[in-house]
Amino acid sequence: MADPHPLAALLAPRSVAIFGASNDPERISGRPLRYFLEAGYSGVLYPINPNRATVQGVPAYPDLASVPGPVDFALIAVPAALATGALEASIDKGVQAVVMFTAGYAETGEEGRKAQERIAELARRGGVRLCGPNCLGLFNLRTGHTPTFGSYLEEGPERPGPLGMVTQSGAFGTHLLALAKRRGILSGVWISTGNEADIQVADGISFLADDPETEAIACYMEAIKDRERFIDAVTRARASGKPVIAMKVGGSVVGAAAAASHTASLAGSDAIYDTAFRQLGVERAVSPEDLIEIAYACTRGRLPRSRRLAVMTVSGGAGVLMADAAEREGVELTPLSAEAQAEVVSWVPFAAARNPVDLTAQPLNEPELIDKGFDLLLGREEFPAIAAFFLLWASSPKMGEILFRSVSQAAARYPDRYFALSVIAREEVRRRYEKAGIAIFEDPWRAVEAVAAAMRCAERLAEPPAPPPAPLDGLPPLPKRRIGENEAKRILAGAGIPVVPEHLATSAAEATAAAAALGDRLVLKILSSDILHKTEVGGVLLDVPAAEAADAYDRLIAQIRATAPNARIDGVLVSPMLRDGVETIIGVQNDPVFGPVVMFGLGGIFVEVMRDITFRIAPFAPEEARRMIGEIKGAALLEGTRGKPPADIDALAEVLSRLSRFAAAQAGRFTSIEINPLLVRQRGAGVVALDALILTA
Amino acid sequence: MADPHPLAALLAPRSVAIFGASNDPERISGRPLRYFLEAGYSGVLYPINPNRATVQGVPAYPDLASVPGPVDFALIAVPAALATGALEASIDKGVQAVVMFTAGYAETGEEGRKAQERIAELARRGGVRLCGPNCLGLFNLRTGHTPTFGSYLEEGPERPGPLGMVTQSGAFGTHLLALAKRRGILSGVWISTGNEADIQVADGISFLADDPETEAIACYMEAIKDRERFIDAVTRARASGKPVIAMKVGGSVVGAAAAASHTASLAGSDAIYDTAFRQLGVERAVSPEDLIEIAYACTRGRLPRSRRLAVMTVSGGAGVLMADAAEREGVELTPLSAEAQAEVVSWVPFAAARNPVDLTAQPLNEPELIDKGFDLLLGREEFPAIAAFFLLWASSPKMGEILFRSVSQAAARYPDRYFALSVIAREEVRRRYEKAGIAIFEDPWRAVEAVAAAMRCAERLAEPPAPPPAPLDGLPPLPKRRIGENEAKRILAGAGIPVVPEHLATSAAEATAAAAALGDRLVLKILSSDILHKTEVGGVLLDVPAAEAADAYDRLIAQIRATAPNARIDGVLVSPMLRDGVETIIGVQNDPVFGPVVMFGLGGIFVEVMRDITFRIAPFAPEEARRMIGEIKGAALLEGTRGKPPADIDALAEVLSRLSRFAAAQAGRFTSIEINPLLVRQRGAGVVALDALILTA
Repeated sequence: MADPHPLAALLAPRSVAIFGASNDPERISGRPLRYFLEAGYSGVLYPINPNRATVQGVPAYPDLASVPGPVDFALIAVPAALATGALEASIDKGVQAVVMFTAGYAETGEEGRKAQERIAELARRGGVRLCGPNCLGLFNLRTGHTPTFGSYLEEGPERPGPLGMVTQSGAFGTHLLALAKRRGILSGVWISTGNEADIQVADGISFLADDPETEAIACYMEAIKDRERFIDAVTRARASGKPVIAMKVGGSVVGAAAAASHTASLAGSDAIYDTAFRQLGVERAVSPEDLIEIAYACTRGRLPRSRRLAVMTVSGGAGVLMADAAEREGVELTPLSAEAQAEVVSWVPFAAARNPVDLTAQPLNEPELIDKGFDLLLGREEFPAIAAFFLLWASSPKMGEILFRSVSQAAARYPDRYFALSVIAREEVRRRYEKAGIAIFEDPWRAVEAVAAAMRCAERLAEPPAPPPAPLDGLPPLPKRRIGENEAKRILAGAGIPVVPEHLATSAAEATAAAAALGDRLVLKILSSDILHKTEVGGVLLDVPAAEAADAYDRLIAQIRATAPNARIDGVLVSPMLRDGVETIIGVQNDPVFGPVVMFGLGGIFVEVMRDITFRIAPFAPEEARRMIGEIKGAALLEGTRGKPPADIDALAEVLSRLSRFAAAQAGRFTSIEINPLLVRQRGAGVVALDALILTA
Repeated sequence: MADPHPLAALLAPRSVAIFGASNDPERISGRPLRYFLEAGYSGVLYPINPNRATVQGVPAYPDLASVPGPVDFALIAVPAALATGALEASIDKGVQAVVMFTAGYAETGEEGRKAQERIAELARRGGVRLCGPNCLGLFNLRTGHTPTFGSYLEEGPERPGPLGMVTQSGAFGTHLLALAKRRGILSGVWISTGNEADIQVADGISFLADDPETEAIACYMEAIKDRERFIDAVTRARASGKPVIAMKVGGSVVGAAAAASHTASLAGSDAIYDTAFRQLGVERAVSPEDLIEIAYACTRGRLPRSRRLAVMTVSGGAGVLMADAAEREGVELTPLSAEAQAEVVSWVPFAAARNPVDLTAQPLNEPELIDKGFDLLLGREEFPAIAAFFLLWASSPKMGEILFRSVSQAAARYPDRYFALSVIAREEVRRRYEKAGIAIFEDPWRAVEAVAAAMRCAERLAEPPAPPPAPLDGLPPLPKRRIGENEAKRILAGAGIPVVPEHLATSAAEATAAAAALGDRLVLKILSSDILHKTEVGGVLLDVPAAEAADAYDRLIAQIRATAPNARIDGVLVSPMLRDGVETIIGVQNDPVFGPVVMFGLGGIFVEVMRDITFRIAPFAPEEARRMIGEIKGAALLEGTRGKPPADIDALAEVLSRLSRFAAAQAGRFTSIEINPLLVRQRGAGVVALDALILTA
């Protein structure tokens, strides 16, 4: 038998104590015990209630100490004044995990935040995992463990299903559970994490990754608190073949402010969440509907194994719009072979035969065309997935049974293919198809969108990424003082990042001497710890002929004396004027959530006006850097457009990866790093950093 | 009494003949008559059936000529072999409009296309409006006129509702009608236009614009056939205060090919549809779900009168995500006044009070907080629209009635405000709220999206655009031959577009003479009708000192003799070297649907790499041009970024408008026009065309 999951005591305990259990099964304090009883919890239940011998028919105890046997888990559903006492009693009893409903902590302000820190510390020292406070609890319907008063179970016991759900918000989590159920997806495990004093969304994902009956994991969060825990959890889910679909809210200005006041959580940049999710193989959902539809598509017992999709319709218009949706979603409607197309036309002269295949209304007269279509597309043409559109036929008295037989038999004949059906039908009809393994959508556009999401999820699971490279080792730690431009370049060169050769001249004569070694055309830049923006004070001279180096030196010094008379001048940096390449900007910022994050974009207006930039959390390998480079819209410029040769993308990817490993090694010692510009020369000629800035804390 | 609409005979006839009416009400050929009878059609019905004295109890006639009274409308539901005869009989009888179900025309290929042209011509000459062929007919439930066999009416007579729907595809139209009905929107009028031999989607829109009971118009189309008819129709709808929501499919490569084979219609560019819809005030829906949700939001009997939205929730998480949705949709969550915020906090200490207002779960204990919230937000703070989130409360035994009373009373107290409620509830509960004028959404994100669409629609209706300016008159028509660069500039200058001064030199001496008048630095360009791409053959010299004009002339000629020895050289254009401004590209292309369409973008990589361009159908006024300019991402560059002064956007807008009027006047005489670059100088200094190309047919 495998070792129990570290969260087994929280999510699958053998014994449960309930503080404040009420005898009234309708009251909030009575609901959890009622749910346990209705769900047929197989372990031992200990209601704690000093006023009653039994609660809802279960023998009660006046306090936890009086409970005879061991207790794995305690539910703390008491007011704030009593919560700490209950937690202490739990620790004394040897309880390993608690859920705390109690509100009045970090969500109420500074004082509450401190109180929350105290209970978190208490739990940590006592060796108890703490879910909450200010949460709605959780359920694991696989074992009947239901420490929640959430209304999902209010209408009676619910069967467990293949979806696992983790939601920071309890109330909104209930809404999502209800939406999923209406959509025909039952959830087996739900965890609401509330204020996340200890247990976070990541912990829930980690547990679900190991739960054999969970097919897909849906999450809702306002922030990720702990980067490492999140990365570990989603990596674990990926390794066990389970798609993680995440809805992260608070990306807007007003939304972030509302989230901050709501759960006192730091939002972080939404663009960085976006790229981090992509990097970590998490499918991001924008809206609740998205979350539910993607979860639906990923809990059908099968996933499509490539992006090739066959579309079969009985209305040309639907085929057209499904083709539009496919293009938008990156799904390939590979054309049928010429023979297959000829066969379709031999069945129905005016059919569309290429893909989408439109059988027209002809199957109304010849229903066997549907079977033939499935066999042609899935059997002979071997499409891994099919999206089929049948109007209202699934509910039609005449066609309903015929269609169901055809579709369900095809799903049985091709058990490794993905079936999405777009029909309008009553709920019981939909459920019947779903039991046969078929995904049902009313909107054909939505069908393609959902299949596309399932394809993306399957693609990630089929090709888990190489583990991230180690941070660079053997680097001297960054100094705590200000780092000048020349020193920044030296430090980055030490990390293997090519930088432009340069000399620090402190006299015109030194400038002349330096020039000789550097080339025909030079750049002279003032070096002064008092000047951050050199260009603004006229501190940069471009394209200076080498012969005029001394003169340029004197001009530059005179210029700075005039524009920044109080600046201490450390000298003048002399370097060759390079311009044979594409100017890019790479940098690192410290995200409050994800830590060091590497940024990449093309120089100038691309970043400043078009905001055409992308991110990756550090460290990452060169292959990940290549994906990153491909994400910006201006990437075509690097591939050689407007008569220019292709740029050295390999060298760029290598430097991005190196910078990410450097940043990971120096994490905490800098506030930002910027290489602007990094010149990417033509293929084979490498890259070179022309300017660099490292800001220390 | 107002004149009847020109399409009254098609959509509200007083008498109807049905060719091929069957006595079996279940058969396709029997359904239309059955629907007429069930819908209580108030006019006179004439089944045409040579084999029966009565059809479904209605006296039948052997042929149309035998019908005693006048016949406004005929339904032709007979095979192709008999269809022409039926049409001829209709013309002889004085019928004014027909619907033709019959298939086998343009959708089947070239021969069918010709047959369709013949019946179209026959109808035109006979003065009969023709809907179809290959359509599913139409219905007008306001009069019980139901010439269709579509399955929407199959389950029995349907009440007419506020939605008007026009769909090119009949089958897919039925799907949309069913989706709308499931969503609680009843359609009063539906028209399927099929092959559009005569009646187009635009005609349906035009009729619905005048129909007093239609609140909003939803369309589905694969192409617009006639630009003027479409513009007239949507302008008419706008004038009568009705939002038009359009779903246009076939925008993808595969989708366009499928559409072309499906209805033999030219797709046109999807980007141009996008901007044309925006320009014409049409709300574009991407997916069927979008179409239905926006139509739902626009048929609530009220529209929000500005973009200010109040959000009220009982779950902080929902407020955060609704704020995210609002930002994405351009909806303003204006913060509450300080007094109002203080009041909210006085009710619930830990409430979010800014907007979103999160009342927490407190209304469960104090339901009157909901009434107070409505009065504060709608009464005191005067928000025109509110989106409120109440979890599952609408279905809760305890809160259901309380919530309904509060919300419905608020909707009655504030009859000019827009109410969107996000709750999960059974259908009968939803319908009850809808009857009280409240829009119901399960997904709070979707609620904000739909309200945003209603806001956009209302905004357009409140501020109808100035009528487009007239094409420029008094212009000499473009010649039919090739137009050289210098001639192109002269022609555009004649239309009021500023062009760079230039001289055509045919000798070095002339170049020198010209230089004197043009400035210090010059551009020399080869002029040759054999050379289209001057740069590629070295035909352009930039930044030539005026003193070196003669020498440059000789060099340029020598260069061309070498690179393009066979080119006839017409001379060398000498002009001043101008670079003080932002380079833009403006042009005109002939869209197969919308005719002359003006394109605008920033120069170079912005257009070529970033595809940052926008379009307008010609002609348009300078205000429309300003909106156009604001649409590109790089617009910030014109507003003066990176230390540069703001550019002359007024002059740019004026020139775009002039070019559009020029293009409208010359429509049909050119294939494309490009001004590249058009230099936009700093504010007050105007714009100048540096190069121009006019390609004639």
